[in-house]
Amino acid sequence: MDSSRQAALNEVIAGLGYDFSGEIRIGGDYVPVVVDGRTAFVSGQVPRVGTEVVVTGPAGSTVSLQQAQQAAMICTVRALLLLRQSLGGLENIRRVLRVGVFVQSAPHFSQHSEVADAASGVLRKVLGDRGAHTRTSVGVMQLPKNATVEVEMTVGIEAANDL
Amino acid sequence: MDSSRQAALNEVIAGLGYDFSGEIRIGGDYVPVVVDGRTAFVSGQVPRVGTEVVVTGPAGSTVSLQQAQQAAMICTVRALLLLRQSLGGLENIRRVLRVGVFVQSAPHFSQHSEVADAASGVLRKVLGDRGAHTRTSVGVMQLPKNATVEVEMTVGIEAANDL
Amino acid sequence: MDSSRQAALNEVIAGLGYDFSGEIRIGGDYVPVVVDGRTAFVSGQVPRVGTEVVVTGPAGSTVSLQQAQQAAMICTVRALLLLRQSLGGLENIRRVLRVGVFVQSAPHFSQHSEVADAASGVLRKVLGDRGAHTRTSVGVMQLPKNATVEVEMTVGIEAANDL
Repeated sequence: MDSSRQAALNEVIAGLGYDFSGEIRIGGDYVPVVVDGRTAFVSGQVPRVGTEVVVTGPAGSTVSLQQAQQAAMICTVRALLLLRQSLGGLENIRRVLRVGVFVQSAPHFSQHSEVADAASGVLRKVLGDRGAHTRTSVGVMQLPKNATVEVEMTVGIEAANDL
Repeated sequence: MDSSRQAALNEVIAGLGYDFSGEIRIGGDYVPVVVDGRTAFVSGQVPRVGTEVVVTGPAGSTVSLQQAQQAAMICTVRALLLLRQSLGGLENIRRVLRVGVFVQSAPHFSQHSEVADAASGVLRKVLGDRGAHTRTSVGVMQLPKNATVEVEMTVGIEAANDL
Repeated sequence: MDSSRQAALNEVIAGLGYDFSGEIRIGGDYVPVVVDGRTAFVSGQVPRVGTEVVVTGPAGSTVSLQQAQQAAMICTVRALLLLRQSLGGLENIRRVLRVGVFVQSAPHFSQHSEVADAASGVLRKVLGDRGAHTRTSVGVMQLPKNATVEVEMTVGIEAANDL
């Protein structure tokens, strides 16, 4: 049963104030999720809603910490929606293993952990203890489509015979 | 049989116009490929041919999109040649799982997906559906040896008893 | 028996001249290590000793190559200490699979491989052949807390029935 996970995700989405009901589009010659055995890989997600990247530019200059955190949350919601679609339900996420958070950064912006905590918070809220993960956060020069944040994920999934 | 994969790779190499017949050299205290169970990890590859990194500098200023795409293709060819050498043949690649593409970027260059698509295109061409993968593309300040692009890869491989 | 690994690690620590005897603290809403089957993921480590990040700023301008190498060694020691704590001993590291090294870089600094070799050297010294790994080194705009280097790791571990 994923009802509590789905309910928590719905709450996060309502808080963000964006509509994620359409197809989750990706922007290149790759696939959003690959499942291999008990592991699923999720492509790096930018804060795109529908066809638009809604938070762009470098954190620490034109983008505030709070806006960058919102961007990180949108990326994470996208990753969860893609996993739900690929695995048939959020309940098939066994454990988040690793999260990579890339933040487009102004030269002196160093609050990458604070940005990444917004992504981690979504995972904890939706998945509880199973959302606890390892993480690498870095500040980069640029991101695709001038996105402020990109979030990638590796997750453990329930064994095939459980799916 | 890897004949069709090898033939496709030969075609890519011919299109690039470089000679990849020598040993594939790496530049540090690490190994090019580690195999663990049904997974192989490939170290980040820069566009080195022989001893020379042939595409250097930031995309979006001194390096054009097209040159950056060529760099991404060279990195990907190197990764495939290293996998072939390590696994004993391209046919032992079961599925590409994840590709990381780092692009040295001028401040306003945001076509990382377009650069990365050149890497993804090589994988699709050589491996067909088995080359479909998840991907994370980011724009970074610098890369080893001033390389324009670096490509890393995680691939699923055939089980040991198939090798 | 991990006595020779522990002894080698002690030697590295003595050479660095820092005290790593306290708790290894991390700086955000995530966990330092996740174990999944025969694989362990280690969160990106910055050169923090106790509560202080001891090497900050961009390599190639205010930070020398040698200082950046020292930073990379500290990150790697932290990763090993976290693995020891999580796995119950260094002997439970079966093989280092992948290392990611992010170096905060001045615009023209391109000796990321030389920085990363310092991290790789620690792994070789402590783990011998089992420390040989694949690696991706990149130069980034910024890192959490203005750290000069961040090192993440994926390692193979002994099977659960061996632990």
